Amino acid sequence: MPQQVLDARISPHGNLDLLSRLEVGKLLDTSQGVLYPLFRNSSLAVLNYGDYLDDGRELLERYKDFDIRVIQEERGLKLHLRNAPASAFVDGTIIRGINEHLFAVLRDIVYVDDTINNNPRFDLTTSDGITNAVFHILRNAGIMQPRTEPHLAVCWGGHSITPHEYDYSKEVGYELGLRGFDICTGCGPGAMKGPMKGATIGHAKQRIYTGQYLGITEPGIIASESPNPIVNDLVIMPDIEKRLEAFVRIGHAIIVFPGGVGTAEEILYILSILLDPSNSRIPLPLIFTGPDSAADYFEMIDHFIIETLGPAARQMYSIIINDPEAVARQVVKGIDQVRRFRLKTGDAYYFNWLLNIDLSLQLPFVPTHENMHSLNLHRDQPPHLLASNLRRAFSGIVSGNVKEAGIRLIEEKGAFELCGDTTVMNPLDTLLTTFVEQQRMKLPTTTYQPCYRLTTHSDSD
Amino acid sequence: MPQQVLDARISPHGNLDLLSRLEVGKLLDTSQGVLYPLFRNSSLAVLNYGDYLDDGRELLERYKDFDIRVIQEERGLKLHLRNAPASAFVDGTIIRGINEHLFAVLRDIVYVDDTINNNPRFDLTTSDGITNAVFHILRNAGIMQPRTEPHLAVCWGGHSITPHEYDYSKEVGYELGLRGFDICTGCGPGAMKGPMKGATIGHAKQRIYTGQYLGITEPGIIASESPNPIVNDLVIMPDIEKRLEAFVRIGHAIIVFPGGVGTAEEILYILSILLDPSNSRIPLPLIFTGPDSAADYFEMIDHFIIETLGPAARQMYSIIINDPEAVARQVVKGIDQVRRFRLKTGDAYYFNWLLNIDLSLQLPFVPTHENMHSLNLHRDQPPHLLASNLRRAFSGIVSGNVKEAGIRLIEEKGAFELCGDTTVMNPLDTLLTTFVEQQRMKLPTTTYQPCYRLTTHSDSD
Amino acid sequence: MPQQVLDARISPHGNLDLLSRLEVGKLLDTSQGVLYPLFRNSSLAVLNYGDYLDDGRELLERYKDFDIRVIQEERGLKLHLRNAPASAFVDGTIIRGINEHLFAVLRDIVYVDDTINNNPRFDLTTSDGITNAVFHILRNAGIMQPRTEPHLAVCWGGHSITPHEYDYSKEVGYELGLRGFDICTGCGPGAMKGPMKGATIGHAKQRIYTGQYLGITEPGIIASESPNPIVNDLVIMPDIEKRLEAFVRIGHAIIVFPGGVGTAEEILYILSILLDPSNSRIPLPLIFTGPDSAADYFEMIDHFIIETLGPAARQMYSIIINDPEAVARQVVKGIDQVRRFRLKTGDAYYFNWLLNIDLSLQLPFVPTHENMHSLNLHRDQPPHLLASNLRRAFSGIVSGNVKEAGIRLIEEKGAFELCGDTTVMNPLDTLLTTFVEQQRMKLPTTTYQPCYRLTTHSDSD
Amino acid sequence: MPQQVLDARISPHGNLDLLSRLEVGKLLDTSQGVLYPLFRNSSLAVLNYGDYLDDGRELLERYKDFDIRVIQEERGLKLHLRNAPASAFVDGTIIRGINEHLFAVLRDIVYVDDTINNNPRFDLTTSDGITNAVFHILRNAGIMQPRTEPHLAVCWGGHSITPHEYDYSKEVGYELGLRGFDICTGCGPGAMKGPMKGATIGHAKQRIYTGQYLGITEPGIIASESPNPIVNDLVIMPDIEKRLEAFVRIGHAIIVFPGGVGTAEEILYILSILLDPSNSRIPLPLIFTGPDSAADYFEMIDHFIIETLGPAARQMYSIIINDPEAVARQVVKGIDQVRRFRLKTGDAYYFNWLLNIDLSLQLPFVPTHENMHSLNLHRDQPPHLLASNLRRAFSGIVSGNVKEAGIRLIEEKGAFELCGDTTVMNPLDTLLTTFVEQQRMKLPTTTYQPCYRLTTHSDSD
Repeated sequence: MPQQVLDARISPHGNLDLLSRLEVGKLLDTSQGVLYPLFRNSSLAVLNYGDYLDDGRELLERYKDFDIRVIQEERGLKLHLRNAPASAFVDGTIIRGINEHLFAVLRDIVYVDDTINNNPRFDLTTSDGITNAVFHILRNAGIMQPRTEPHLAVCWGGHSITPHEYDYSKEVGYELGLRGFDICTGCGPGAMKGPMKGATIGHAKQRIYTGQYLGITEPGIIASESPNPIVNDLVIMPDIEKRLEAFVRIGHAIIVFPGGVGTAEEILYILSILLDPSNSRIPLPLIFTGPDSAADYFEMIDHFIIETLGPAARQMYSIIINDPEAVARQVVKGIDQVRRFRLKTGDAYYFNWLLNIDLSLQLPFVPTHENMHSLNLHRDQPPHLLASNLRRAFSGIVSGNVKEAGIRLIEEKGAFELCGDTTVMNPLDTLLTTFVEQQRMKLPTTTYQPCYRLTTHSDSD
Repeated sequence: MPQQVLDARISPHGNLDLLSRLEVGKLLDTSQGVLYPLFRNSSLAVLNYGDYLDDGRELLERYKDFDIRVIQEERGLKLHLRNAPASAFVDGTIIRGINEHLFAVLRDIVYVDDTINNNPRFDLTTSDGITNAVFHILRNAGIMQPRTEPHLAVCWGGHSITPHEYDYSKEVGYELGLRGFDICTGCGPGAMKGPMKGATIGHAKQRIYTGQYLGITEPGIIASESPNPIVNDLVIMPDIEKRLEAFVRIGHAIIVFPGGVGTAEEILYILSILLDPSNSRIPLPLIFTGPDSAADYFEMIDHFIIETLGPAARQMYSIIINDPEAVARQVVKGIDQVRRFRLKTGDAYYFNWLLNIDLSLQLPFVPTHENMHSLNLHRDQPPHLLASNLRRAFSGIVSGNVKEAGIRLIEEKGAFELCGDTTVMNPLDTLLTTFVEQQRMKLPTTTYQPCYRLTTHSDSD
Repeated sequence: MPQQVLDARISPHGNLDLLSRLEVGKLLDTSQGVLYPLFRNSSLAVLNYGDYLDDGRELLERYKDFDIRVIQEERGLKLHLRNAPASAFVDGTIIRGINEHLFAVLRDIVYVDDTINNNPRFDLTTSDGITNAVFHILRNAGIMQPRTEPHLAVCWGGHSITPHEYDYSKEVGYELGLRGFDICTGCGPGAMKGPMKGATIGHAKQRIYTGQYLGITEPGIIASESPNPIVNDLVIMPDIEKRLEAFVRIGHAIIVFPGGVGTAEEILYILSILLDPSNSRIPLPLIFTGPDSAADYFEMIDHFIIETLGPAARQMYSIIINDPEAVARQVVKGIDQVRRFRLKTGDAYYFNWLLNIDLSLQLPFVPTHENMHSLNLHRDQPPHLLASNLRRAFSGIVSGNVKEAGIRLIEEKGAFELCGDTTVMNPLDTLLTTFVEQQRMKLPTTTYQPCYRLTTHSDSD
Repeated sequence: MPQQVLDARISPHGNLDLLSRLEVGKLLDTSQGVLYPLFRNSSLAVLNYGDYLDDGRELLERYKDFDIRVIQEERGLKLHLRNAPASAFVDGTIIRGINEHLFAVLRDIVYVDDTINNNPRFDLTTSDGITNAVFHILRNAGIMQPRTEPHLAVCWGGHSITPHEYDYSKEVGYELGLRGFDICTGCGPGAMKGPMKGATIGHAKQRIYTGQYLGITEPGIIASESPNPIVNDLVIMPDIEKRLEAFVRIGHAIIVFPGGVGTAEEILYILSILLDPSNSRIPLPLIFTGPDSAADYFEMIDHFIIETLGPAARQMYSIIINDPEAVARQVVKGIDQVRRFRLKTGDAYYFNWLLNIDLSLQLPFVPTHENMHSLNLHRDQPPHLLASNLRRAFSGIVSGNVKEAGIRLIEEKGAFELCGDTTVMNPLDTLLTTFVEQQRMKLPTTTYQPCYRLTTHSDSD
């Protein structure tokens, strides 16, 4: 069935609307092959909101004729869209939120190309250099709010969750919104949308008209997690590692709803940071929560963490089942500690400079078969580094599941092979198997074909 | 079980915060017995949001110790609350929306007393005088928006509806919000809340931060239909007749969801106006809508209208089943006709001056046993006057069901007696019986005891 | 020479733009002869800004063909102007500030007629009743600012002052603006314009975009003191007494620049209040100030006050010559005392409820020959009552000089006769003579013909 | 006499308030000697507003102990000032406008260092590269306003003008402000302040609260032309050439008041552009204006232009004497042509991309003795290139008069020598001599010592 498509000519609202002639030139130059495809495909993902697909390639194929052009007019920029997904429009007019998202995509792609890449000021091989780049991208996007108290709750969790879990995430968002918290998520469907919708109602009741619904995404995932138009601040980070760093640098509390491997990647990422001895003094509330039906799920996660990272890791988070108000109240309490700590140390409220993030968490991990196979999944390393390697393993599986490059690799060479100690691989196997059984791997439209294979060597190796 | 209560001292946000010493004096004078009880009880209803009760008296009894005081301080007014329902607070702080509602109550009660009542400028025995008073109360409340295109959709329907009907009303609100419409309802739960919640999400996606969620209530009903905090403009009209007039003077389209006798009263009210020959040229879109499950309901209503008011009445409305987008698109179309008509006639967009409202629809109807019994429910009158009398009959039943005065009367003297032609009374009987069966009379917590009794005389009488 | 005139059709900005059909009707009904002429003439005065005339009648004669109509259109009100003074327009478009003033005139005239006059709620024969009316008119105009600290400086002084005095008043306004004060004046030229222009620059430097430039006028004087468009809040009080009460109830400090009899009226008014024993505890900073060249002037005023009201009156004000910064700093200090006092007594910041204003200062004084002649200008009364009577005497002279009714009376019957003790009349004679010599009576375009004659009786009478 | 100084700790208002740790580090590093002195000295100039000095060095010497530190606190940046000029403060609190200017200085210095300098994306040796850098700096400063009609009037003229000329510049600003124009100047005293003050009053009367008073300066001149706090958008361009380019790229009309060599530099700059054959179709209104007393002045300028650049140059501008309204009306007309032209060509309203600016006008001209001496001031070149070289000559004289580096050079090596054809040098001599006589070279506090010497060779050379 052919997709419904529309042509349109749109003016920016609320975002970058000034480009230099040079910048416009680069975006128009389809032959150069660098900026244009990135811009086109990310824009397409933004326009395709609501029609969630696990396979980014499917999107590109469906809208092969889609085209987007930057036009410089006397009053500023315009975008000309051809054969754009009709779902982005209401009675022929583009939804304002999606309009903003298109220009956010443009802003971030241009900025990273202009200012970050190839600029000797940014050394992207060092930890400080990467953090500096993350800060600049976020600053350029205008999403950090100085002169305010800490009040940003990051919500993680799956895009493929049950309706019941989804309603629960709305309830939590509602209670957070009533208490004046803003919401930051990865900006797709499911647990990334629910808290924002809930917070919108909470904010409306409190007459908070400036509520921030911040979505942080990256070009590799945006196709399968296209931002909901409620998102009123959107940032496209260059890769998943900078996206994760953005979450933890600007969030004041982290709430994890049920999810799949993507959520597992996020959990391992934050645990790696919190287990890092140099961060031991730094408060960062971390709450796992879900409805009654998710109790088993979090028990399993809990189990996996203790078995692989040890009981110390258990101190880093709390689990709250079926009590949205309790979650919100714990966020209130936890963020108060964050505030006091930053005040004492003089660290910024809007950017967690003090947190040490290991370079292994920052350097882009490219999930090739070779890189996956050579991941160090052994016990003979500090827990925070094992967590970091496990993070990479999950990241690779996410890629094999839903990212264009990953899917192609799996099609070419078969499943990734992961290899490690049995005391690591057995819990991992259990976890992944359960994800498959509970249909948390992908949207439950097809039967899931694992993109990984686990092998172990005896711990004595 | 004792209710959870709180004491608080609150400052106004966004509404009247200047009172003269005289006005403060009257509000404090509990002995005078006029303004204070009205103010206290309406405030209590506003604070009790979320805990919907059908019997206003139950509310008063539950919070016997509730007290509210107006305090004049150097920066302006404050309200001191004692033993207020805890549901109005989040972690000890009053919800901002409820704060605004309290001061809206104050504003309207003071204004009506100050400016309307006993002022020879307002002759409340004439149609023009009543309309003038309605206009002044609405203007003083600041809820009419000049310099804008028509875009206010009035949503009517029951406070006691099924979850499915509720979700449907949200969907309709969402589609209206996406198209930039504001919402006006009677401001209780059910069909009065759903469209506002939906529109909130629609507005968020369109970055409409000034969306109006207008609630129009009156002291007699507010206890059982306490305004949801999403309502960001609240008006307390002096009585149900002025409330109904307010709806139709400021609304640009009317959407009716399933409901009970209150909804029936509203339907008869608007049909009486639209059937009035002097209004024949004036467009006012009227749409009945609900999910599939409501198809039977509207068929029954449709039937009742045709049987009692004749086939001409059928031209006044359309019925749309299970298609929120179609409803929204028809509102777009209908309001465009309204706009053109007002433009042509020079009538205000924000107040429908041209509409003729018969004095019988405007004069407060006091549902005593005598008044109910002497209602003219015969066929030998123009359809719009029969509709007006049926409106009064339904109004009396609403009072007997949920209004304090009505319930007391029924307890004292038994059911109201309604009497008319069989061709009127039989359809009425069918309708009311179905309302009882479908639990649309009151919130479905107790078995419903009818507060009316129907008798007929042969049409030849 | 015929005046340059223009026709225009204007929409309201920032003020009342909703009128009932009844209100429109009254404004259109030129036959009824009440509201329309008041509205027309005040509007003409507003439009004639910049072309200051001492004789209100001259204005009316110049623009005999001027006409103004209220038109109700679909988006709200419009005003149709015919033969309006061209000075109100820039390249054919009305100056926005003047647009606002026209609708402020409309708002106040309609409100006073609708709500105050003939409404039994307002007893305009009692002190409390008049104060209540003043409060309601100001509240309806929306010019009181609750939720803010006291920061309104009232500036009095002549409309006919030297360029040097004018520049000085600008300097004072600039220093007040830099310190965040808002300005309130009688809204004509001279000392009523200078402080606002100065404050505008001070506010711009402090990025205060909400600075209030409040003009309070009345129909009798507006023709000769038409508001400068800088005035961004304009109130038309019904008469000079309510205008003066408005100044002292809402101002937090009073600064007096050089002026003529109008200024003398204001000085006697405020001294009568401050000398009232019941106000002895209430702080209200009063500063007389001017450039070096005004030193003699204030010495003369000072002398007059001491001679007529006694040395106690000297405690009520301070005189600061040629030091704008010192004036501003004293206002800072004085208003801090006001703030503390209101805080202690719980009196509103935005309205000085506690101040007692004698009924003799509130009742409209009609300066007929008889009333002027029978004024009690003897010493055998408390100083604050003598001040009140002197205030009336000056008020009558202002009327005879520049108000339409007064000028006509003088033309018909000759000069007013004022009669009193020599110890009162001699200083008065000196003062008035000096005013004439210094050209402070009227704009210095013609030779001044006194509208008064002073006679004395020996103090033993 | 020691200067009055103050210490203070200030938070940003309205500008950059987020810096990375790296950026803060560079600003704090006083040893590195690059960013800190630039930041300190520019900040000092901003703080010294009102106390205009011709010699930037005098400022630095007066406030030798002045120190400024960037402090990163939890809510964002602060600046700590030590021994700052007291004139920036009112009763101990910094004037808000100056606060904003300090952070504008910070913003621009950081941005140029971070993003422009050493970034291979910006090739500052090409015309396009320089224009691109100008665009980026202006965009980063947020001063271009897309989505608006053209309405920015650039006002040039001397900082040392007569009170009469100053008042006239205010009048012109007032008429521009009444017509909704924004003002852009070089942001010092005199003709750079007057139009802004006038426009402020014009905007106030038109209720334009978003009026832009844009100051464009550069580090070399800011010390002697410190921005008036009315300036509400301040940009520090890296050098005079980029400053001049900024003026003509964003201005929609240029008005020139009387001035000295700086103004002459500006006139030659714009004439060089307008005489460039590639710009012949591009409209850019250019008006020379002043009071009656300035008639001779503009005659002299006119004469100089015709003699050196030929009669064609005379078509590029109009001269209006003593008629502020006529100036404003001509701006209205001229900008309308600009608007139509941009509309037709699709060029941006907010940045004049199409205008060709010769590289000789863009490359920073360093006025050493050698560079000055080797300027080509001969007639055998196209007029627009001769204009460009004359621009450089005037630029060098400005530097020798008031810029730190220039003054030092003159002290070391004596006057600059300029050499050219007699038909160029004679008119130049006349012009400069008149500037000296009319005290237009520097603030008239000391006797002027010329920093130049003119020599000619016969035209036959």
